[in-house]
Amino acid sequence: MTRDTTESDQEFVTLAHGAGGGAMRSLLDELVVPQFTGNGAETGNDTLVGLPELDDGAVHPAGEGALVITTDSHVVSPRFFPGGDIGRLAVAGTVNDLAVMGATTPTALTCSLVIEEGVPTADVERVIESMAETARQAGVPISTGDTKVMGNGEIDGILINTAGVAYVDREQPVPDAGLEPGDSIIVSGSMGDHGIALLAEREGFDFTGALESDVAPVNDLVNVALDAGRITAMKDPTRGGLANALNEMAGKADVGIDLTEESIPVSGPIASAGEVLGIDPLSVANEGKVVMGVTPEDAEDVLAAIHTVPGGEDAAIIGQVTDDHAGRVVVDTGFGRRYLSEPEGEPLPRIC
Amino acid sequence: MTRDTTESDQEFVTLAHGAGGGAMRSLLDELVVPQFTGNGAETGNDTLVGLPELDDGAVHPAGEGALVITTDSHVVSPRFFPGGDIGRLAVAGTVNDLAVMGATTPTALTCSLVIEEGVPTADVERVIESMAETARQAGVPISTGDTKVMGNGEIDGILINTAGVAYVDREQPVPDAGLEPGDSIIVSGSMGDHGIALLAEREGFDFTGALESDVAPVNDLVNVALDAGRITAMKDPTRGGLANALNEMAGKADVGIDLTEESIPVSGPIASAGEVLGIDPLSVANEGKVVMGVTPEDAEDVLAAIHTVPGGEDAAIIGQVTDDHAGRVVVDTGFGRRYLSEPEGEPLPRIC
Repeated sequence: MTRDTTESDQEFVTLAHGAGGGAMRSLLDELVVPQFTGNGAETGNDTLVGLPELDDGAVHPAGEGALVITTDSHVVSPRFFPGGDIGRLAVAGTVNDLAVMGATTPTALTCSLVIEEGVPTADVERVIESMAETARQAGVPISTGDTKVMGNGEIDGILINTAGVAYVDREQPVPDAGLEPGDSIIVSGSMGDHGIALLAEREGFDFTGALESDVAPVNDLVNVALDAGRITAMKDPTRGGLANALNEMAGKADVGIDLTEESIPVSGPIASAGEVLGIDPLSVANEGKVVMGVTPEDAEDVLAAIHTVPGGEDAAIIGQVTDDHAGRVVVDTGFGRRYLSEPEGEPLPRIC
Repeated sequence: MTRDTTESDQEFVTLAHGAGGGAMRSLLDELVVPQFTGNGAETGNDTLVGLPELDDGAVHPAGEGALVITTDSHVVSPRFFPGGDIGRLAVAGTVNDLAVMGATTPTALTCSLVIEEGVPTADVERVIESMAETARQAGVPISTGDTKVMGNGEIDGILINTAGVAYVDREQPVPDAGLEPGDSIIVSGSMGDHGIALLAEREGFDFTGALESDVAPVNDLVNVALDAGRITAMKDPTRGGLANALNEMAGKADVGIDLTEESIPVSGPIASAGEVLGIDPLSVANEGKVVMGVTPEDAEDVLAAIHTVPGGEDAAIIGQVTDDHAGRVVVDTGFGRRYLSEPEGEPLPRIC
């Protein structure tokens, strides 16, 4: 989005503004953040991590501890997909945003449903059951909510907003801006599964059966990792994938990241499907993965700990943080070096 | 909704399921609450007020204190209306849900935007500015959020979800189930303004100019009321209006409520417009009002205190709680007595 104030009434929101990349960040940086920053100052709220940080959530002091808060609206299409559904995605997505802030035991989630008139009640039932099952898996209560119905054609299907809150020790939150030169970069498993599986399903490709979304809560895995060593920064690589997450982390910490392509786990079927579809598995959403910086002396311990957790078997050290090329991510392909650029946005609409 | 399990796959969601009345409560009672209840038990979370209570929010222990949590998705149409807009509604709605739980100093709000491709950027800007202004008025930071864009025709305009959280003393929350026989019922101002003003605007009636939504944060007003006396139960009469709120409060406390019709504040223009439109101002949404039960010896003090707060000038004692006709609300019209029934749902779709 170009914000030319003399022509602002001629500008319109585009799909890229919701795609998690550069276009969206412009919208946030220029419009939302300036308006919303500092509103609570007069109440004496000292925000520890606020909107300007554009982290996975906010952190506020509360009593002796702190509150970690996050929210996401989920609009994924189709609502049932290989490996999951919109309900599982909504619960896992919010649990994971809290987890990568270091809050692995959420206090509670909220659930706000917006449903199109005419959606089969059985579909709503299936989605609710899936949310409940995922919440049990993550050990989090869903304790309040809201239900709205919009007319036929006013909303496409089912939209679910979940917000999550966790009461934690004041020093517990892990920002996404904390990378330090020398840190090892660890990913908790294979990249690109959610985005590629969804696109393959939508396109009706034959290999769909072999592809599944990775959607799952990662709070247990993160908890084990936090116990095993010092994690300096963490993100869940959702919209825009690993490329987006690492570029954000590098930019915020003003450091560079060097990756080795062959060390980045991508499953064979996902790599093949990505080639056929023309989509880079490193630039599409994951919904059950974490990427973290770990202080170098702890990296092997953290990796070994993650390997013991279901879903963490394919975790790998994929690179290092450097004080060269600040804000950029460089991949050694084996044949040379290339930048892993921030995608302008997630290439797929309604991926989460 | 009738839930006949042998035919459940032939049932569909209707507008009434999102209308805040009986149909919606059936959906929640039969489908959502049973699935979501008790999921967090294994984490040691002792929920103080949970989903089964269907209160305006949930309450969880946190450290020495407690967290009050609430959420609402706002789908009001049109997005700009006399007296407010969807942004002001989203912030005030969530601040007010916290306030009527007794949490008058919110820790933070979240803001999740879902925008239709093609919406003018200037409209988004105006909505964001309105949210910021309302947040400043309520003294609450908006500290985290999410932005999604859906394709043209996939969502009608702008949807805003706000969730709110407040860290409070353990004994601070006020449930909506606490009415006791003898309590006075106080409303903080005139009834029906939001619903009637919106419908008049939609229908293009001439008297629109005289009608305005009451949308505003009420946390200051509630704070003053709490300082002035013992409030036994509180709600904000949104979808389904005063009729819905009082029937819920009577049902949950297993008490009756006797009202005197002439004591219920309804402005002249709202009453006239309601008659023309065939809509009862007592059964449509208010967005800047509170209804509360007050222990009888404190009622006059609380009323006097509310009168001092901007927006509370028309507050009135409208009736008493009785141990007769449990679960029912009876209105003395001056010519006889009638039940003020729970509406099956808010008669107007997309009112909030």
